Amino acid sequence: MLSHMGDWRRSHNCVQLTAKNIGEEVCLMGWVQRRRDHGGVIFVDLRDREGLTQVVMSPEYNKDVHAVADSIRNEFVIAVKGKVGMRPEGTINTKLPTGEIEVMVDELKILNASQTPPFMIDDFTNANEDIRLKYRYLDLRRRKIQNNLITRHNIVRTMREYLYARDFLDIETPFLTKSTPEGARDYLVPSRVNPGKCYALPQSPQMFKQLLMVGGYDKYFQIVKCFRDEDLRADRQPEFTQLDMEMSFIDREDLMELLEGMFIEIFQNIKGIKLERGFPRMSYDNAMEKYGHDAPDTRFDMFLKTINELVADCGFKVFREVVADGGVVKAINAKGAGEKYSRKNIDELTELAVSLGAGGLAYIKVNEDSLQSPIVKFLGDSADTIVKAMDGKPGDIIFFGAGKKDIVNLYMSKVRLKLGKELGLIKEGDYSFVWVLDFPLLDYDAEEKRYVAMHHPFTAPLDEDIPLFDTDPGQMRAKAYDLVLNGSEIGGGSIRIHRSDVQEKMFNALGFTPEEREYKFGFFIDALKYGTPPHGGIAFGVDRIATILTGSDSIRDVIAFPKTQKATDMMSEAPSKIDEKQLKELYMKFEVVEND
Amino acid sequence: MLSHMGDWRRSHNCVQLTAKNIGEEVCLMGWVQRRRDHGGVIFVDLRDREGLTQVVMSPEYNKDVHAVADSIRNEFVIAVKGKVGMRPEGTINTKLPTGEIEVMVDELKILNASQTPPFMIDDFTNANEDIRLKYRYLDLRRRKIQNNLITRHNIVRTMREYLYARDFLDIETPFLTKSTPEGARDYLVPSRVNPGKCYALPQSPQMFKQLLMVGGYDKYFQIVKCFRDEDLRADRQPEFTQLDMEMSFIDREDLMELLEGMFIEIFQNIKGIKLERGFPRMSYDNAMEKYGHDAPDTRFDMFLKTINELVADCGFKVFREVVADGGVVKAINAKGAGEKYSRKNIDELTELAVSLGAGGLAYIKVNEDSLQSPIVKFLGDSADTIVKAMDGKPGDIIFFGAGKKDIVNLYMSKVRLKLGKELGLIKEGDYSFVWVLDFPLLDYDAEEKRYVAMHHPFTAPLDEDIPLFDTDPGQMRAKAYDLVLNGSEIGGGSIRIHRSDVQEKMFNALGFTPEEREYKFGFFIDALKYGTPPHGGIAFGVDRIATILTGSDSIRDVIAFPKTQKATDMMSEAPSKIDEKQLKELYMKFEVVEND
Repeated sequence: MLSHMGDWRRSHNCVQLTAKNIGEEVCLMGWVQRRRDHGGVIFVDLRDREGLTQVVMSPEYNKDVHAVADSIRNEFVIAVKGKVGMRPEGTINTKLPTGEIEVMVDELKILNASQTPPFMIDDFTNANEDIRLKYRYLDLRRRKIQNNLITRHNIVRTMREYLYARDFLDIETPFLTKSTPEGARDYLVPSRVNPGKCYALPQSPQMFKQLLMVGGYDKYFQIVKCFRDEDLRADRQPEFTQLDMEMSFIDREDLMELLEGMFIEIFQNIKGIKLERGFPRMSYDNAMEKYGHDAPDTRFDMFLKTINELVADCGFKVFREVVADGGVVKAINAKGAGEKYSRKNIDELTELAVSLGAGGLAYIKVNEDSLQSPIVKFLGDSADTIVKAMDGKPGDIIFFGAGKKDIVNLYMSKVRLKLGKELGLIKEGDYSFVWVLDFPLLDYDAEEKRYVAMHHPFTAPLDEDIPLFDTDPGQMRAKAYDLVLNGSEIGGGSIRIHRSDVQEKMFNALGFTPEEREYKFGFFIDALKYGTPPHGGIAFGVDRIATILTGSDSIRDVIAFPKTQKATDMMSEAPSKIDEKQLKELYMKFEVVEND
Repeated sequence: MLSHMGDWRRSHNCVQLTAKNIGEEVCLMGWVQRRRDHGGVIFVDLRDREGLTQVVMSPEYNKDVHAVADSIRNEFVIAVKGKVGMRPEGTINTKLPTGEIEVMVDELKILNASQTPPFMIDDFTNANEDIRLKYRYLDLRRRKIQNNLITRHNIVRTMREYLYARDFLDIETPFLTKSTPEGARDYLVPSRVNPGKCYALPQSPQMFKQLLMVGGYDKYFQIVKCFRDEDLRADRQPEFTQLDMEMSFIDREDLMELLEGMFIEIFQNIKGIKLERGFPRMSYDNAMEKYGHDAPDTRFDMFLKTINELVADCGFKVFREVVADGGVVKAINAKGAGEKYSRKNIDELTELAVSLGAGGLAYIKVNEDSLQSPIVKFLGDSADTIVKAMDGKPGDIIFFGAGKKDIVNLYMSKVRLKLGKELGLIKEGDYSFVWVLDFPLLDYDAEEKRYVAMHHPFTAPLDEDIPLFDTDPGQMRAKAYDLVLNGSEIGGGSIRIHRSDVQEKMFNALGFTPEEREYKFGFFIDALKYGTPPHGGIAFGVDRIATILTGSDSIRDVIAFPKTQKATDMMSEAPSKIDEKQLKELYMKFEVVEND
């Protein structure tokens, strides 16, 4: 539907007119992207959400219109009525859908003027991000950001329509909820009506969606904001959007089938790519062994390999001692890196590893008739064995990580990604999904000296592992599944605990005292006692999916009004100081040493 | 899509099986709504989201299954495999879609047991609301609540699909925003990263959606939670859901046309009712005169009428003085109330009026050959004139309100509603829409001694009224429109100010100091300077629409997890006390005299 204002009725948007419309009387409205004056004739690229159309104001065609047009500047908002004509030969722009035509203007209305913007509104702007965030409403006019938000809209629309068609109910859960600190920090909201008490903004609607299953709603979804007060990293926002789902009377296979179908539709609609059913699956152990990470980037095949057996008795003391101390030695063969990689490249790779906790980054360069490496002399015969085991051929470089398992995995997974990028193994437009399965149920937190839930405390253990609650909780496996795309975890879910006795065991394993358990989760354990169906679900990160599908560098490019890494809104300057009166109504006070 | 668990695959839900399925092997899963034992045969009404199906466990048919079935109680979760059969003659239930058939059970699995629920889960439960809110997950199982939430889902789905089809973009706006106290109280969210500062939860995304228009997004919508820390009334919740919309390059007529189309689709889909385009329109002045309210219930035609002219010189001192003091005397003719209304009814009506500020409620009962009233003797000849002007016929009662205009309107509008209900003028299933237009722009707040915005400070005045900013702001009219359904304002919107100079005038008229203006809205006034298109929008109350369309008594019946009037969640007991550690991280402290 196009719109009008009084007798000015917009007939087309700025991408619709082509040679087919020649001779038609049209009415367009939009922004002046660019205004040029050629021999007294004024040409304007008129811009709207959809595209650009050239409109022409010539003194010979219409003197009055030309006189008004003279005052037009970039970013003015104008409305024009005129006739569609062919552009003169030699001025056709084949890059634009409307590039064959132009509109000769009969009537012109300046709907609003514009000051000169603080930066050029185009995709090649070199304005820094701070300025662009301060004037976000102008940055939002850039074609790239507009296309990003349109794509995001289409992703979300596809998700909804897919779930609508499959009898999922869109049900809203509360934003003012109870604080149950576990995992990330809550954002708190003081209550005026209940002095001294606070709500918490939800980190996820986890308990509510499970209670909807207890309530018999069978299939639930919601696309919903969630909140985590974390120390922000580049790809995090204090508020983020989740596609949240839950189903009853299902097992893992049902959910995986359903969700593959959803992503097949998303990729068809958004990218025009036909994905095949049966996304690859990988166990958590396998992912950690081969990729060093539980969100493996499977766009390229270059694998880590534990070589403890080959180096347990070798001549290189570092490796030998790591194995003896219960650590790991892992190697990766950077195929063909020998030619591409200079000393400098290897140094950069080493720096990366060291910054993530490595002592160094040993390597062996395989030459035609020698092994080139600072450690070969120590390794002796083992060097050949290792090279053979790693399928080392002339031109390859084999890199080694040695130390505590989780630290080695951390840096070697990053080393692998850097190698993949630098060796050109990751192609733009490649998309690789993988399901990661069979996660451990619990993770031991050495600092807090207790187990923490690997996913969350409602994740069901494998049925056969339930007895291990009493003997060896660390060995339990979870009915959990993550969906990974291009090395990003885009979704994570599980079959849930639906028996109250198992849920109590789980809370016990997490080290909650009975009081804590009762206070935080008492009502939830109660709920499980009144006929809870078997159920499971998943949550997807919508921001992250949109970032990947738009090929954006930052999550901020797919959010209309993002926050900085200091969790501030540069435009409105939120958060802000609050009137004493407002704080007093909430019975609260800040105790801050003020710096600014 | 139905779902399975391992080799148990649900074949149908509990509303699908009819005589057409006789002889089929099926698998159903759900809750035991009722378990009866008739001559050793166990009958279970199996319930899911969709309906009920009778499943039968007979010792003669399958002894083992019957033995297991013996332990089943209400609200157990079970799965059955069996064969669809015709019910024996005389046991057919014509009220159920599945009432002709039953399932003879071959295999039975108890998926979960249930304790005896604290109240009966049916629509005739007499449990009080507190208990039902504490065990909300059980209350959610009642058919009525399930149908309400399904209807709400369908309303929201229709809204989305209607707007998707018309090129509206679903764009998310932030929840952690800046506090700009004006109107209701903000909910605050202290920031840990920015000590001593707070975000506010949005009362509406008003500025953000306008900035999206500045950013060129043309057509925006969002179904989004908003927050107001108000003193709660029966039909309010601290968090509520809004269908929020905004469009560029439009006028009022565009929006009204678009939105009538949306409600035509909603009523077609939800109620099977065909509405006609061209909803009635009424000016604000007319609504206040005839209904005493800006959200008139137009389901019945019984109008208030100002009779100042008729009583200015009458013999009844009360009326005469009210007119002389600049007040109003308004009358309403309760047609045919004479017979129905006893002394007691009139007393109740008077009580209602007095509770809302009336001194009393004068009336004249029109009899065949007399006027019966305590005030007739004072009125003298005027009585006949008034009765004639009010079209009083034998059997009618004319009621009078006299006093300050806004107080008279307040109580006489309620008197009118009570009369309409008691006289049977409002029929169940009647739906009456009306657009209310031409609102005043500003309202004088006698307490604060300044003008406040009737809608909000971004509402555009009529173009011809702009000069009145400098001379008589109180007389200005707004480009605003409310949509009213059955006497409830379900949506309100306006064409917005798109010129920064007009916006500054508006903020001045509201009595902001330049500092205040700059601090709260500086960035927004700036934004208007960079090419802002003419634009307008509207916001609808989704909870309220769902309440009306489901015929619910309370907004709480269309919200999955509502809060009480004390803004608490009875189930999880939110809000709650917070750990000192958590508060300390936010540099905050409560100063409360503790009572509990």
